[in-house]
Amino acid sequence: MTTKLILDLDTGIDDALALAYALASPEVNLIGVTCTYGNVVVADSVRNTLAILELFGRTDIPVFAGPDHARVKDSFEVQEISAFIHGKNGIGEVEIPDPKRQVETTSAVDFLVESVDAYGDDLIIVPTGPSTTIAEAVEASNVFRENANIVMMGGALTVPGNVTAWSEANINQDPEATDLLFRKVRNVTMIGLDVTLKTLLTTKETAQWSALGTTGGNFLADITNYYIDAYKTTSPHLGGCGLHDPLAVAVAIQPGLVDTLGINMKVDTDGETRGRTIGDETRLNDQDKTAAVAVRVDTAGFLDEFMRRLTGLARETAVV
Amino acid sequence: MTTKLILDLDTGIDDALALAYALASPEVNLIGVTCTYGNVVVADSVRNTLAILELFGRTDIPVFAGPDHARVKDSFEVQEISAFIHGKNGIGEVEIPDPKRQVETTSAVDFLVESVDAYGDDLIIVPTGPSTTIAEAVEASNVFRENANIVMMGGALTVPGNVTAWSEANINQDPEATDLLFRKVRNVTMIGLDVTLKTLLTTKETAQWSALGTTGGNFLADITNYYIDAYKTTSPHLGGCGLHDPLAVAVAIQPGLVDTLGINMKVDTDGETRGRTIGDETRLNDQDKTAAVAVRVDTAGFLDEFMRRLTGLARETAVV
Repeated sequence: MTTKLILDLDTGIDDALALAYALASPEVNLIGVTCTYGNVVVADSVRNTLAILELFGRTDIPVFAGPDHARVKDSFEVQEISAFIHGKNGIGEVEIPDPKRQVETTSAVDFLVESVDAYGDDLIIVPTGPSTTIAEAVEASNVFRENANIVMMGGALTVPGNVTAWSEANINQDPEATDLLFRKVRNVTMIGLDVTLKTLLTTKETAQWSALGTTGGNFLADITNYYIDAYKTTSPHLGGCGLHDPLAVAVAIQPGLVDTLGINMKVDTDGETRGRTIGDETRLNDQDKTAAVAVRVDTAGFLDEFMRRLTGLARETAVV
Repeated sequence: MTTKLILDLDTGIDDALALAYALASPEVNLIGVTCTYGNVVVADSVRNTLAILELFGRTDIPVFAGPDHARVKDSFEVQEISAFIHGKNGIGEVEIPDPKRQVETTSAVDFLVESVDAYGDDLIIVPTGPSTTIAEAVEASNVFRENANIVMMGGALTVPGNVTAWSEANINQDPEATDLLFRKVRNVTMIGLDVTLKTLLTTKETAQWSALGTTGGNFLADITNYYIDAYKTTSPHLGGCGLHDPLAVAVAIQPGLVDTLGINMKVDTDGETRGRTIGDETRLNDQDKTAAVAVRVDTAGFLDEFMRRLTGLARETAVV
């Protein structure tokens, strides 16, 4: 039995690794990818997603475009820090062929709503960028908010943020959207910096991909080495790059990779701590907990799965 | 076998309940109480502690005075909000006889250091106020920081603070002191708002104490009713008062009352979030975790113990 999955990506280096993880997983039926802004603008997220799917021979998977900026803003521009970490093209300045396919004409929001209508909580949605698209689906459909099963990468509960001392990059882009998600969706797993900064990759691992001598192996190694280099500047204390987005996909497939804390969450939208993900004190004693926040991770177990799956996927691509 | 305990109190209504919990516990050998500032000035903390010990007939327990303000400040004044919650006299404007005993001449810091020298981690120290006294003991003694076994009430990891959106009252008084404690002491359990706001008392329970018709029962009921009244104004969403300090004493005796998360903690001492307790991102991947932060509590189990113990203690005091 396979798990139906939709990824909502701002593709991005670790988004590309998350996509590869899903493609490499026999348990997964990836029914579509929706593209949002964040690490890149939506057009580049679409372009990168289509190009990566083509590189791995998966032109059967449809790609949808979401809103191109947060509703409380007029537009979106890639932040300097995002371009530094992911490269201006979002995939570490690595060149891969332009895709032959086009984005679907159905919107990302409609595709998400229709998919939850069709599959209920047999479907898992994995957002790895700002929550803007998900929030629109929440507002569009009661069925969506009652039945959507979301495993999101974003936020930081027990550790500081990465764009400010209190805010993680995805949440910071659209605090209102994630706040809505936390308040309305009944089944959210949050994979935040609490655990993703415990799953680090180094050039020791990427060398295994380069050694394959395949287009897929080179692509994965080259984008990840760019990312590891950026982390040397932004987070020298870590000694590697955080596998944020792939961990969310891995947990969607194998929930046992993390321990979670049941808690009703909110996002601060006002005041000095705008963009902070934190427990909602007004729902602290509610018996129903709508979020499960990952607080511990089986680091070794995840890294084993990650390398085994991605190396296997890269091995099957064309020899250079 | 009894557990040796020192309480470090800023006595305070819930500090008084914590003291009563320790006195009511046959497993506890309370070898002394050190007094700090916070809910009240040190002189009032000493006065209330001596008076409460006398009310419960425990003039065998010595009381010590700690520093009267945070080191980074010149002085300490009781905040308006503290006086509102605890009353100007710290015990809900309830009048009890002045104590006949005096505070010890040994300082609180010396008593703490000497006690850890003598008993090592067979002794548990339960601070329920600012960390100023503990920080001085940490600086005074390597043996203390290596061996002190601390179960502290303070902080908020997964929920907002109670004096600002990010800072809990005890930590807010002296962020540098708690930061030092988190960085230097090897064995700290943090009982923060994450769990203490899940252990609520109402007038339904305090009526059981009034019904005893004893001096102890009246005292406990009267101070706690004052506290419950204040909570109606400050935290109307809770529907009761938080049993902050007693929960820390209860966990020192029965660690199984909470589930904890192993994590290396820090306190933000600079920037907008000064006074926040949060995981230290630079020690995130250290194998040794020096703190255990309570994230779940057996609410019913604790409330049963709390009522059983305090009611038993109050029953033994003089009939009014």
